[in-house]
Parts: sequence; structure tokens; C-alpha cells
Amino acid sequence: MAPAADSPISPPSPTSGAALTKAGQKAILTQTISNDSPTITDLDASKLTSTRITSPKAVPAPDSPEVWSQSVATDHMLTCRWTESAGWEAPEIKPYGALSIMPTASVLHYATECFEGLKAYRGDDGRVRLFRPDRNATRFLRSATRISLPGFPPSEFLELLKQFVGYDAPRWLPHNGDFLYLRPTIIGTSPALGIQKPKEALMYIIGVCFPPLGDPKAVPATGGTGMGAEAKGAAGMKLLASKHDMIRAWPGGFGNAKVGANYGPSLVAQAEARDRGYNQILWLFGEECFVTEAGGSNFFVLWKTKEGGLEMVTAPLEDGVILEGVTRASVIDIVREKLPDVNVVERKFTMEEIMQADKEERLIEGFGSGTAFFIAPCSDIHFRGVDVVLPLGKGVEAKYAMAIKGWLQDIMYGRTKHEWGVVVEEQHE
Amino acid sequence: MAPAADSPISPPSPTSGAALTKAGQKAILTQTISNDSPTITDLDASKLTSTRITSPKAVPAPDSPEVWSQSVATDHMLTCRWTESAGWEAPEIKPYGALSIMPTASVLHYATECFEGLKAYRGDDGRVRLFRPDRNATRFLRSATRISLPGFPPSEFLELLKQFVGYDAPRWLPHNGDFLYLRPTIIGTSPALGIQKPKEALMYIIGVCFPPLGDPKAVPATGGTGMGAEAKGAAGMKLLASKHDMIRAWPGGFGNAKVGANYGPSLVAQAEARDRGYNQILWLFGEECFVTEAGGSNFFVLWKTKEGGLEMVTAPLEDGVILEGVTRASVIDIVREKLPDVNVVERKFTMEEIMQADKEERLIEGFGSGTAFFIAPCSDIHFRGVDVVLPLGKGVEAKYAMAIKGWLQDIMYGRTKHEWGVVVEEQHE
Repeated sequence: MAPAADSPISPPSPTSGAALTKAGQKAILTQTISNDSPTITDLDASKLTSTRITSPKAVPAPDSPEVWSQSVATDHMLTCRWTESAGWEAPEIKPYGALSIMPTASVLHYATECFEGLKAYRGDDGRVRLFRPDRNATRFLRSATRISLPGFPPSEFLELLKQFVGYDAPRWLPHNGDFLYLRPTIIGTSPALGIQKPKEALMYIIGVCFPPLGDPKAVPATGGTGMGAEAKGAAGMKLLASKHDMIRAWPGGFGNAKVGANYGPSLVAQAEARDRGYNQILWLFGEECFVTEAGGSNFFVLWKTKEGGLEMVTAPLEDGVILEGVTRASVIDIVREKLPDVNVVERKFTMEEIMQADKEERLIEGFGSGTAFFIAPCSDIHFRGVDVVLPLGKGVEAKYAMAIKGWLQDIMYGRTKHEWGVVVEEQHE
Repeated sequence: MAPAADSPISPPSPTSGAALTKAGQKAILTQTISNDSPTITDLDASKLTSTRITSPKAVPAPDSPEVWSQSVATDHMLTCRWTESAGWEAPEIKPYGALSIMPTASVLHYATECFEGLKAYRGDDGRVRLFRPDRNATRFLRSATRISLPGFPPSEFLELLKQFVGYDAPRWLPHNGDFLYLRPTIIGTSPALGIQKPKEALMYIIGVCFPPLGDPKAVPATGGTGMGAEAKGAAGMKLLASKHDMIRAWPGGFGNAKVGANYGPSLVAQAEARDRGYNQILWLFGEECFVTEAGGSNFFVLWKTKEGGLEMVTAPLEDGVILEGVTRASVIDIVREKLPDVNVVERKFTMEEIMQADKEERLIEGFGSGTAFFIAPCSDIHFRGVDVVLPLGKGVEAKYAMAIKGWLQDIMYGRTKHEWGVVVEEQHE
């Protein structure tokens, strides 16, 4: 690991992930889409202007009801308008507030929207870091392209993201150990009802206070976070397997893009899970009941094989049904590095395999991985009348999940120097 | 047909459609969802208030560039706010203008949005009519429920829709033969990033000037309508069959709900079709290449059977992959009534069957049916290297499609008294 990568002036590092080769990532990083005409301007971070708020809000305490509401944004937002005729305008950081959107806007009718989710961390050394943000930048571009929103050079977006974090971090990440959730978004704003690629769009980046979702020790101060972490005391995540008449995504669809269309339609099943005392839906696919994702997280199972080896399995990316999670890629990478005895396999696997492993007492752990919930160990899976209780549900600590979580946190909070931890330079007033 | 149904004071008529029984429709029409608490208020049209605009805009001419832009709304909009704690507030008609939406709003991230599309027609007798609006009302409720937005009594919504049309029709439908496109919409407005059922929502109804899309005689005044009507002179609709790696909807998904999530993800394929000179994508499903929808319209094929009979086929509703179109139901009903020699069949059918019928010279017509394009005869289908030229593409008039269009138009414009034509009472200043 090159220590230079931890420096604030270094460019985003190419990653070691399996899903995209370095060359492939570089191709995407330098790619610019839909700028055929020389008069059309590309996204340009060097044009950023800023207007500071005059009366900043109070920053809520880490575990307060305000934080659990997931509705408190920082003082500012970064916005950048795009039009088909002129391209990207100059981005600006300005006071956070409501957007003015016409009732005919594309995003309100045709779900022309995509987003990213990542966090900024105030490390033990007092410096602010992002975790593998280059991965979010390239995925953001892929999602935008999939939903017919304008493309951009991911490197310019990444620079804007750092500028935004650097602007609000001094006030909004006051203490070492604090984190802030970042939500870059693009929406189609064309005020016209024709079903077509939007001719106007808005990119914006906001920072929102998030509670420690998925942390077994966290107790929400209010009743409803919407994330289900409050169900049944959160000793471990309880999953309800999806029914055959409700699927999240399909091959040839868009399950691998971070677009709104993957989320709204899942809320009915999710609400049913909550009502029945589960935290999340475990999304299955097909008559074989392939295991795909858990809520908005990727899902891993660790078991002994019939031959006695240790295996960690997760659904593959090839058929485009699951999201290519940054945490997912990092779990795979870190386990391969730190735990050579564990065979990490990306392949299709079924509920039947999980139940068989349970019956034969080979099941060790299951956990979700994602930005919001981070690493969330699972205690129970309910599958069409059958309760699969994982060792965690019987009081056995999820040691592997906790170790993985620790290794990744050490990078996020700068305890371990690693190229995945990208330091952001802060702008003090 | 009871003439009373054509009276402005009659309630919405139950329809004779095959998809929902009368009892089933009535159950939905009187249904009220999510109002467990007596303190929560249901949608109530009697509470409607209105504020008239002081300086009305100019109404664009029927075939002008403004109309082809599909972006000119009428002077007013109807809005109604909902919150989980208090239910529906009093609806209001007010000047049309931008909505104020927080950057964290559910609709901008999770596609919690649904809509309807129907038209208001100024009839030959000078009266304004809606076409089977009770069907739109019940479907609107079903879409809202599918995407976790609040429910409402469809009868109250229908009353609000009539009030809105009655308010703006005097200025915006000045001449007999004019029509206006209506777009009822519900969006999730909760300003919180938790992935959950929205706790706040906004219903709104707008009226937008639409060009005569799908009319072979119509020539757009501007280059891009986004609807593809301008491609290749529009003598007939040219369809590009979808590729195996791009699928619109899936059983257990949400293809039968009018939610944004069905539209945004289809724009990439649609843009490719336009670039290649086609009007719309013909959406196929599965390895069998079942024919499902054409663009945003339902799709019908008329052919001679091998036994020599006349058959009109369209995809079935059962597996939830296609939208339950109001025009689709009306085509089925009117053909059964007017053309007893044509056997109307709702069943799965394949591209192979179309190609076989073409080869054996049994193919008579193909057409899309929907509100925006109405009845749009098809001249060509390109299917993975094969061009299927329908009789229309060889200069044979699409007589059946034109007859169906005429019968339905006669109801819409009040030439034929029919319970499907629902008169709206206008409010003159």
C-alpha cells in the first residue's frame, strides 16, 4: 500500500477490485459521454463557486432523534445544472434548501434519477477521509448512463465531491469517530411530458446526518428510521425471504444500477417485512430461489463445505441483477488478503443450499454489506414457513463479520494506512 | 347505452371491461386505504378551494411548436398534500407553477411516483367529455398502492379531476374538436433518506397541450417530440423489437402499474430505436419472444388464422407484465360489439407467430393503443435482422384500426351517445 495515496493531493487511486480491471476502470475514469459538439461544456470542477450560509444550523448530537430521522442535511449543497444544448454549467456550493421543480419535470413522472451513497469519516488522526470514492464515481456514471441522464468525467465529479466535503466537514464532523452520509444525485428536470431522454438535468451533492444503522449496540431514539434497525432489538439482522410473486430485479433489467426505479417498487415487500418483525427482505430470484440481496445491501454467507473447507459465497455480478457494492468488493478483497483459508466465491447460490448447510450444522455466518448498514450480521432467515436460525441467533458471536468490519473501519478512520482511505482537504472559514 | 350516463350530474359509470368485474371495480371505487385512525382525514373533493390566476397565458395553436414541445400547461393546477399523521389536506386549484421539493425528497431518490394519462375532449356539441375516467381513477389507486404512496377513494379523485377540467376547459379547449392531455400525479415528498414508505406526499393534476401523436397526417412543427412520431414520415409506426438483454418488465415486478420506474429505464432502448429510424420499441419477453407492448402503448395484431377465421390478439393481463390500458379495454369491447366475425383473444403470442403469419400472407394489421398515441397503425417490425413489413407498409390501408379509431372518437367527441363519454360541467368565470 503506497502511503502517498493517503495524501490529500494524490489523485483517486485505481482499485484492486475484481469486477473491473484497472484498465477498464481507467477507461471509465477518463470517459466523457454525449459531448459530440465542441460548444458543449463538460463537467468542470475548476469552475466551482461557493456562497457561504450566514446563519448555520446547530449540528445534532450523534444519537439524537434528529439523526435517526435521516432528514438533517448540512449547511450547504453542491449543485450543477446541465442542458442538452450547453452541457454542464459552473457548479456551485450554496446554502442547503428546497429545489424548484416544474410539475412536468421528467424525474417526477419517469424516474429519471440516480444516486450514490458513501460516507465521510473523521479519523483518529483528526483528518477527514472518503472510502474508495473512485468506485462511487464510476458507478455514478454508469447509473446515469443507464437511466438516460448526462455523463461526465468521474474524476471531475470526484473533485467536486471532495470540495463539498471539505467545505462542510469542519462544522459537521466535529469529533474524531464522527461520520456523515453523502448523497450525490442526478435528476431529469426537463419540463415536458414527452417520454424521452431528459434535455435538462441537475446534479447535486448533499450531506445528511445518519445514525449507526446495522450496529447491534445502536438503539434508535425514535420509533421509525425506515431502515428497520429497530426491529426486535437488533441483536442481529432478521431477514424475510421474498415471495415468488415479488421480485426486485431481473436479467436484462437495471438491478445493477443505483437508480430510483430499484427502490420504490421494493417498499411494499419491505413494509410487510417490518410489520412481521423482520429488518429487511432477502431478495430471491427465480424458481431455484437464488439469493441475491438483503434489503439495499449485498449479502454474504460463510459456511463449511461438505469437504470441510471454509467458503464465503455471495451472488455474482454477471447477470446484472445485483448492485456492485463498494463494500461488497472491499469485503471480497480484504478476506482474500487477510484470511487465506477462506475460499471467497462469487457464484449463484440458493436458499436450499443455506438450509442444507444449516441442517448439517455447516452454517457459520451470514451478513449484509453496504454503505448505510456497513457490515450487518444476520441472525435469522424466514423462508416460506421455515425459520433458519444462524449461529448468531443462538448466541454465537459473528466473529468473521466483526473482524471484517474492524479491518475496514481501521482504513476508514485512518488507523491503517491504505490506498482505499482518501484524505480530503478541509476548507476552514 | 343509457343516455343518462352522458349527463353532467351522473356518477361515474361502471364499465363493461373484461379485466375487472363490476363487483371488483365497485369494491375498489369505494375502497379507502391506510385510514386506520379516526383522526386521519380522507381525500375529500367537497373541501376544494380555488384561486384564479390574474394574468392568463396565451393558448398555443393546435399544431404549433409549443404544443409539440409537450411542455405548455394550462393556467392552473390542482394540488393536495398528504401526511401520514393527518391524511389528506384540503385540495386546491391554484396558478400553475414550480413545486418546492427538498433535495432529500423520497421521489428524487426512490422513484415513489405514479401517474395517470387521459384526455379531455371538446365535442361536436360543444360539451367537454372525459373517456372512461373511472378506469383511470381505479388504476391510479392501484399504482399508488403498488409504489407505497397513500390511497384514496377513486370517486373523490374523479370528482377533483372533473372540477379541474371544468375550471380550465373554457379557455384551454376553445374549439369543438380540441383536446387536452391530463396528467394526475402523486409523488413522495418526505424529506428523509431512509428507504421507506413516504410519510408525506403530494397529489397534483395538470393539463398539458399535446399534439396529435400517432396521427399519420400530423407533421411535427419542431424536430423532437420525444415520442418518435416524426420518424420516417409517420405513414405508419415502425417498431424495433427489443433485444434479449433489455427487458421492460418481469412477472412479479411492476409492469402493470403506471409508475415512473417503468419509464426511465426504457429510455436507452427507445433512444436507440429513434437513432435507427424507428418510432418505438416493441417490447418482447422471454426466450420465446412473447410480444408485450409497443413503447408506452398496448399492442394488437389482426390476422387470419390457419383455419381461415379472423383473429385479433393482444397480450394478456394475468402475469402483470403489461399495463392495463383503458384504450386496450375499449378496443376489445368495441370490436366484440361491432365486429362479431373477429375473434378477440387475450393470450401470449410470439414474434414467431407474427413472422409465420407474414410468410403465409395471413397478416392483416398491427396497431398500438394508448392515450397519447390513441390508435397507431404499424407498418414495419424489425426483429433481430428480419424486417416484417405489414400490409400498411405495402400501401394497404389499415381499415380495422381506422374503424376502431372512428368508433372511439365518436364517443369521445359526443357524436355517439355512450356511457363511456362522461360530460364535465364547466365553470365560467
